[in-house]
Amino acid sequence: MPHLQLLAPVGFPLVAPGEPLLPLITQTLRANGLNLEDNDILVVTQKIVSKSENRYVRLDTVQASARARELAAICGKDERVVEMVLRESDRVIRCAKDVLIVRHRLGFVCANAGIDRSNIDAGDEQILLLPENPDLSAATLQRQIGVECGVAIGVLIVDSFGRPWRLGTCGVCLGSAGIVALNDYRGKPDLEGRKMEITQVAQADEIAAAASILMGPSDQSLPIIVMRGLDFAGPGCAADLLRPPEQDLFL
Amino acid sequence: MPHLQLLAPVGFPLVAPGEPLLPLITQTLRANGLNLEDNDILVVTQKIVSKSENRYVRLDTVQASARARELAAICGKDERVVEMVLRESDRVIRCAKDVLIVRHRLGFVCANAGIDRSNIDAGDEQILLLPENPDLSAATLQRQIGVECGVAIGVLIVDSFGRPWRLGTCGVCLGSAGIVALNDYRGKPDLEGRKMEITQVAQADEIAAAASILMGPSDQSLPIIVMRGLDFAGPGCAADLLRPPEQDLFL
Repeated sequence: MPHLQLLAPVGFPLVAPGEPLLPLITQTLRANGLNLEDNDILVVTQKIVSKSENRYVRLDTVQASARARELAAICGKDERVVEMVLRESDRVIRCAKDVLIVRHRLGFVCANAGIDRSNIDAGDEQILLLPENPDLSAATLQRQIGVECGVAIGVLIVDSFGRPWRLGTCGVCLGSAGIVALNDYRGKPDLEGRKMEITQVAQADEIAAAASILMGPSDQSLPIIVMRGLDFAGPGCAADLLRPPEQDLFL
Repeated sequence: MPHLQLLAPVGFPLVAPGEPLLPLITQTLRANGLNLEDNDILVVTQKIVSKSENRYVRLDTVQASARARELAAICGKDERVVEMVLRESDRVIRCAKDVLIVRHRLGFVCANAGIDRSNIDAGDEQILLLPENPDLSAATLQRQIGVECGVAIGVLIVDSFGRPWRLGTCGVCLGSAGIVALNDYRGKPDLEGRKMEITQVAQADEIAAAASILMGPSDQSLPIIVMRGLDFAGPGCAADLLRPPEQDLFL
């Protein structure tokens, strides 16, 4: 019977700014008696990747622009945080009370450009940006683990985004290596030989959501998840999941 | 170590219009040697629920309105299908070539009001609507399984929706019983005692997405999934996941 397992190793330590992740990951897996196998997917929360890449910004170094002050007055957020949201983004999608939704320079549409203030261990006056290039971070980690552990795995870097129309956040894929992120069934027949209506499945987002069930909202305590049971190996990256702006009806 | 298992029993038979699901589910579980346990979540694809509720509509019985013909000319879909989409909806959100996104009368924003043409076994001239009341369908199934199998489980009814900004579909929860669909952390402290920024998690959507990984796109072959390992029990239903229209920036 087809099945999947999701495993959440415990005891992952806090990540110091700039601290390499590989040793922390392999030590945590070992302490949990968990040996990676070929075709496993290692799901890693964005936050520990950002910390490891020292993506902190001290707010007292940030000078808010006029545009940032204008938006901050609307959404009620710190104007220096809004300034950093703007620097990380190429477009403001919605700004309203308590809400600032932008298109991140990487193409993700999300609140606050994915910038975090809570749950980081560097004090209130710092913020944490998304990784510089999450697909590259995932590929690097995949390669390092291949060398260190001798296994061919996939790596996903995930975050949690809110959505239009529905309440609550859901896990989404920000970076991906070694797995088919967007599963394309276009032109393939369904069970009755007709052309399928659902033709592309956001497999990496579904895996991200699955891992997020175990990670929970305070995602520093269980920041890595191993998914085991199916072979998702193939070419692909998180950028595959971005709808081209010219095909988007909600930009 | 916290962990989750997702199990996909094989051999689920095709569902005839109006055929009760309970015997098909229990027979399939038995044939796979799978005994439900307390706190399991049974995830069921919308399609077999709709079939079991005989939500088929023969297109030759449908008369398209002027509004349906007008929209059909824009999106290029069958005007009778568009008519049924309109009857199932309370608002058209976007209509463009090949795209018709509406707010379903149940509050879900999705393409074609969730109406299906492919992958149903009743010929091309019928369509299949979403269940009349998926939360009620889930609650009924939950109660029936409780009586039949003597276990307290949760039940999710799921579909796959496209999303703005991102390519590919993701599993979403349409109906739910016996589990906390929206997990509310508002006011609770994070790991460092600060108020959390992510305050509501769409747990039922994350479970739906996880199950969809195994169900795949031709979701008649593996239409039920058992998720096991954590206790998600609590009050809640899929309607909890709907963002109130007056708080929605994308309607």
